[in-house]
Amino acid sequence: MQIVYDPRQKGHDPQHFLVRGQPKANPETPERVDILLAALQAGGHPVSTPEEHGAGPRAAVHSPDYLRFLATIADRWQALPDAGAEVLPNVHPPMRDGGYPRSPVGQAGYHMADTACPIAAGTWEAVCASANTAVDAAARLLGGAADAVYALCRPPGHHAFADMAGGFCYLNNSAIAAQYLRRSAARVAILDIDVHHGNGTQGIFYARRDVLTLSIHADPADYYPFFWGYEAERGTGEGLGFNMNLPLPVGSGDAEVAAALDRALERMAAYAPEILVVALGLDASRDDPLKGMTVTPAGFQDLGRRIGSLTCPVLAVQEGGYVSASLGENLAAFLTGFEAARA
Amino acid sequence: MQIVYDPRQKGHDPQHFLVRGQPKANPETPERVDILLAALQAGGHPVSTPEEHGAGPRAAVHSPDYLRFLATIADRWQALPDAGAEVLPNVHPPMRDGGYPRSPVGQAGYHMADTACPIAAGTWEAVCASANTAVDAAARLLGGAADAVYALCRPPGHHAFADMAGGFCYLNNSAIAAQYLRRSAARVAILDIDVHHGNGTQGIFYARRDVLTLSIHADPADYYPFFWGYEAERGTGEGLGFNMNLPLPVGSGDAEVAAALDRALERMAAYAPEILVVALGLDASRDDPLKGMTVTPAGFQDLGRRIGSLTCPVLAVQEGGYVSASLGENLAAFLTGFEAARA
Repeated sequence: MQIVYDPRQKGHDPQHFLVRGQPKANPETPERVDILLAALQAGGHPVSTPEEHGAGPRAAVHSPDYLRFLATIADRWQALPDAGAEVLPNVHPPMRDGGYPRSPVGQAGYHMADTACPIAAGTWEAVCASANTAVDAAARLLGGAADAVYALCRPPGHHAFADMAGGFCYLNNSAIAAQYLRRSAARVAILDIDVHHGNGTQGIFYARRDVLTLSIHADPADYYPFFWGYEAERGTGEGLGFNMNLPLPVGSGDAEVAAALDRALERMAAYAPEILVVALGLDASRDDPLKGMTVTPAGFQDLGRRIGSLTCPVLAVQEGGYVSASLGENLAAFLTGFEAARA
Repeated sequence: MQIVYDPRQKGHDPQHFLVRGQPKANPETPERVDILLAALQAGGHPVSTPEEHGAGPRAAVHSPDYLRFLATIADRWQALPDAGAEVLPNVHPPMRDGGYPRSPVGQAGYHMADTACPIAAGTWEAVCASANTAVDAAARLLGGAADAVYALCRPPGHHAFADMAGGFCYLNNSAIAAQYLRRSAARVAILDIDVHHGNGTQGIFYARRDVLTLSIHADPADYYPFFWGYEAERGTGEGLGFNMNLPLPVGSGDAEVAAALDRALERMAAYAPEILVVALGLDASRDDPLKGMTVTPAGFQDLGRRIGSLTCPVLAVQEGGYVSASLGENLAAFLTGFEAARA
């Protein structure tokens, strides 16, 4: 499995977010990358730096207003009287059918779904580097240089909609890669195994059938992102039937995830994607500080093995997974399972 | 002009809200009521206590889910691990087409549009008392006991939608009063002169022609509530043409407001409401800490005079207006102008 990573991703380092009415230390830290890189190094995986693929791939998924916002808001925010050090929204449009304000505060509310996607000075360069890492991995698959690539992307992407950040995500790396893969592949599937529902990814492809979206996650009735990820959400228009949500009770572990994977793989087999993108969150771990599920390293190895057994090329994009005693071990376990199946 | 006020309103007293990423002292304080009451007393206006009108009037405007949320969330929030002292949302549905979570954090995001509507232990009783004050004032008009009543309502209401709090507002007192007035009046108009657009009121009646909504306010492109209040918003369905927004540049004063009132009164004359509700914000004052406009006491007196010159019964409902050197004077000026015209 080839590995791609861009060190510019570490320039994104906001210190705080807000939860339950209180400022907290941001768990989506650059340290995550250090832990994941150490695990790759220990496993003997060479890590390569991506080529630059330009603004086109991200512009194929995200709106011009939103990209302009992300590129400029850190500076504009600092010019506000009495603003916090990092951009955080405080007022939101519950429907997107109204006007688009000039005000930086208004635009922050329009483009940021929650207070868990703070923007600091280094954010824009880092999120572009993160998305470009996923695109480079996709390009390697299309070019035939590999049949499996792991893109170490940070910050993650799967909560980002076409025009909205959320949940530590800004540009939707998995969606941008899938859209890029559509240059050659007629049918792409995205299988999201992060503990949180991939709401942004679902939103981006909800009316389309050329990208099948599947997500295994903790039940949104009780867990972030709360408003999507329910089983009844199946797509719309010509995309009806091309979105599949597999919510599991909070606290679910290896057995429940494996059973949900059975259902996802059955749906995928019927769809027969030419390429699979795995939105590889590791935060379903029993050790993860977000405490949504209780998957063990053996569980991640089994997920890797079963996904590696598929015959199509696979692009694994790093999503969530926060600092814990087993973060690196969980990545290594997934890759070990995957590579054993492909050997 | 009769005056109605319920002292239970003062039980709502959250200490903080969040703006531009930082916790701030909440400006929507019980002290506002003390200042307004002192101005009424100095003007020789007797203040009476409302009768109890029950849950029916608020249930005619707000959704069952939302009312249940408001009534229970303060207690449920306290049961969360590591929650702040007051309910503040941190994650929002940008569209309301998804699921409705069980989670208190998810429900807070669903029902609270921004971080300027904190909920504390005393909130529910106070907002019910505030709405009941407006209903009692409406009942006095319908009963023929008065042709003009001022309802001293706090917290204010005009940013509250059918199922959503926002901007210091929880129950939409003006909308609840207007809906109550519809028991007898075929056509009701709501004229909102608060410095902020009356987005909740607009939202509640947007598809209806039996309640004409008009709002004079600072341009939302630059000013809260940012996403509504633009001139192009004219209503929808059979309500098309029955909403009128008159945004003014931030910093506008007496002359600009008077010119906007000309346009509003012209529209109202064509509509010929049987009763008028005035959503009486005083925060367009040049002294208001929110600094949206520069209206003088003479400007408020002129507004009162021109509204008092109308022949229909008038219900003035207190909306915004924060602690400043002229808060009480501005209310007195409005009432003086109004009563002089009616004398």
